[in-house]
Amino acid sequence: MKIERCIVEKAREIRLLACDVDGVLTRGEIIILNNGEEIKVWNVKDGMGYNELFKVHPRIKTAWITGRQSLQVEMRAKNMGIDYLVQDCMSKMSALKKILEKDCFNVSEVAYIGDDIVDISILKAVGLSICPMDACGEVKKHVDHVSVFNGGEGVVREVIELIMKAKGEWGKILSSYER
Amino acid sequence: MKIERCIVEKAREIRLLACDVDGVLTRGEIIILNNGEEIKVWNVKDGMGYNELFKVHPRIKTAWITGRQSLQVEMRAKNMGIDYLVQDCMSKMSALKKILEKDCFNVSEVAYIGDDIVDISILKAVGLSICPMDACGEVKKHVDHVSVFNGGEGVVREVIELIMKAKGEWGKILSSYER
Amino acid sequence: MKIERCIVEKAREIRLLACDVDGVLTRGEIIILNNGEEIKVWNVKDGMGYNELFKVHPRIKTAWITGRQSLQVEMRAKNMGIDYLVQDCMSKMSALKKILEKDCFNVSEVAYIGDDIVDISILKAVGLSICPMDACGEVKKHVDHVSVFNGGEGVVREVIELIMKAKGEWGKILSSYER
Amino acid sequence: MKIERCIVEKAREIRLLACDVDGVLTRGEIIILNNGEEIKVWNVKDGMGYNELFKVHPRIKTAWITGRQSLQVEMRAKNMGIDYLVQDCMSKMSALKKILEKDCFNVSEVAYIGDDIVDISILKAVGLSICPMDACGEVKKHVDHVSVFNGGEGVVREVIELIMKAKGEWGKILSSYER
Repeated sequence: MKIERCIVEKAREIRLLACDVDGVLTRGEIIILNNGEEIKVWNVKDGMGYNELFKVHPRIKTAWITGRQSLQVEMRAKNMGIDYLVQDCMSKMSALKKILEKDCFNVSEVAYIGDDIVDISILKAVGLSICPMDACGEVKKHVDHVSVFNGGEGVVREVIELIMKAKGEWGKILSSYER
Repeated sequence: MKIERCIVEKAREIRLLACDVDGVLTRGEIIILNNGEEIKVWNVKDGMGYNELFKVHPRIKTAWITGRQSLQVEMRAKNMGIDYLVQDCMSKMSALKKILEKDCFNVSEVAYIGDDIVDISILKAVGLSICPMDACGEVKKHVDHVSVFNGGEGVVREVIELIMKAKGEWGKILSSYER
Repeated sequence: MKIERCIVEKAREIRLLACDVDGVLTRGEIIILNNGEEIKVWNVKDGMGYNELFKVHPRIKTAWITGRQSLQVEMRAKNMGIDYLVQDCMSKMSALKKILEKDCFNVSEVAYIGDDIVDISILKAVGLSICPMDACGEVKKHVDHVSVFNGGEGVVREVIELIMKAKGEWGKILSSYER
Repeated sequence: MKIERCIVEKAREIRLLACDVDGVLTRGEIIILNNGEEIKVWNVKDGMGYNELFKVHPRIKTAWITGRQSLQVEMRAKNMGIDYLVQDCMSKMSALKKILEKDCFNVSEVAYIGDDIVDISILKAVGLSICPMDACGEVKKHVDHVSVFNGGEGVVREVIELIMKAKGEWGKILSSYER
């Protein structure tokens, strides 16, 4: 199928996998304790995905870009080994441009996953754009691919598989586990 | 469609968006720690909605009216910038009337979102009445619109979009993000 | 319909509404903090149901009978105004019999809601037996009515409405809210 | 049906029930408090299943084998009475082999439940292999049985029933509760 091949071709070029946090890595649920501590619910599937992604050579870089700010996200990003964390972000495109300059990547080499209208401009700019199945309607119009998963249910994992399959790396991972 | 247009006409008049808390802004889940602290699970989508709503001029006012009482709700309301918070409320209609007097709004200029039988009288009174998809049967009979979302999954966000579209404000928001 | 009428007739006799806790008042989810504190997720709909039930005269009694033990359940039962709480219960039938002796109720005047095989003997004994939609298969065979709700999504509320409608009390409640 | 009978025959031989933790005993949700404490959400149905399993004579052994590490899992395993807990596990097959040596079990006497690609080699090796309904596609190809439940919704309970039915023990349990 033409469109699918198109996505695979785009995925093959990816050198940076960036995504929003709330509604992508989580279901969009916000839990706040009375001491102000903010808690999120993460999915082990996405964590497993990042583990596998970091085995690809040359190493794919990763970024989380979010308009919110919490210690929780900082801790999880560090724990996952995410390369770039941008919180409290007013303009996602500006944040992305700074990252691209550092690594000398082209915007066509970026995959971005976002779920809400604040993500539209970055989704339109990047080489490969994806949203969760429960993203808002306007976002769905602007992406290359709508995930079969809702936010927090493994969207990032799906995209990691997509990229690794396009690069011919997924089969190697699988056969290492099937032995 | 006649009914839809009717809702749009009603939405165009709205100057106050009021809603219940449990079962509307949340799934109705109550988490109580053993120290008595009550925790709720909020949805980032509703928060995004309020952010956009507050960009509309003249500024639409917002209220949360709940029969329960918790520090949690007070903190979230403050954080969201909600104009009127009424907790531990015995009569939602009385609470609403006081708000209307302060702001010299008419009840026809109020949109209210509620999910349970204690919300019926206020839902019957206001200009635009909405309930979540999982509201109880009796409530559904009394509303102008049943949301496509369950409580806690973005009902308030949907209503905010509805109001902003009716007022011709949503397109401006969208185009600011599509640039 | 004959079976439905039969349930209404049974519901009309109820003087005690008893139920299991995990999987009925909750989704069956068990959250344990590292200090050993156990947390459950309750549903505001069930709480609203109890509020309305306690308005019925003569006053219907309520009981929670569970094989587990936690401070959490004790606190919630007290907060809801539940008349009898039996935790750490080896035999639900024995627990029920003690309650019946105190109040001089007949077992046919008891409604019980349970979801698992430990509830089967009590479900078979009582006047009106109900289980959540996600109860295990064997339980469903032994009940008068399978709820349209899963555990934790408002099963108890549904049964309270069923009993109050059978007793002709629900309409009064509703009209008090529709004024 | 041939395949079903085959599963029953395999289940009849089981002397060790082993499983992964995240995504099997839980929905795969990871909650991390800001003090680093990790919280999981368990299901009371699985707990009930283990209770019943431990009534079978000769006693079936149980194991949890996970690549992650948390106090939470240690506490829950102890509370459930799980015989072997292996955390922070790099190779699930090696972990299993050590357990088999201790108890002189054959790998054909092991049932294993896993949901992700790290579980594939062990799923291929054991006598009876099962995955949750929401396991990843590659895993589903390698199992004898795909559960009707998602992870965290009672998969282990289902497998325990399957094994106990195959051994002719479930009927005894049920009749003890139907008295």
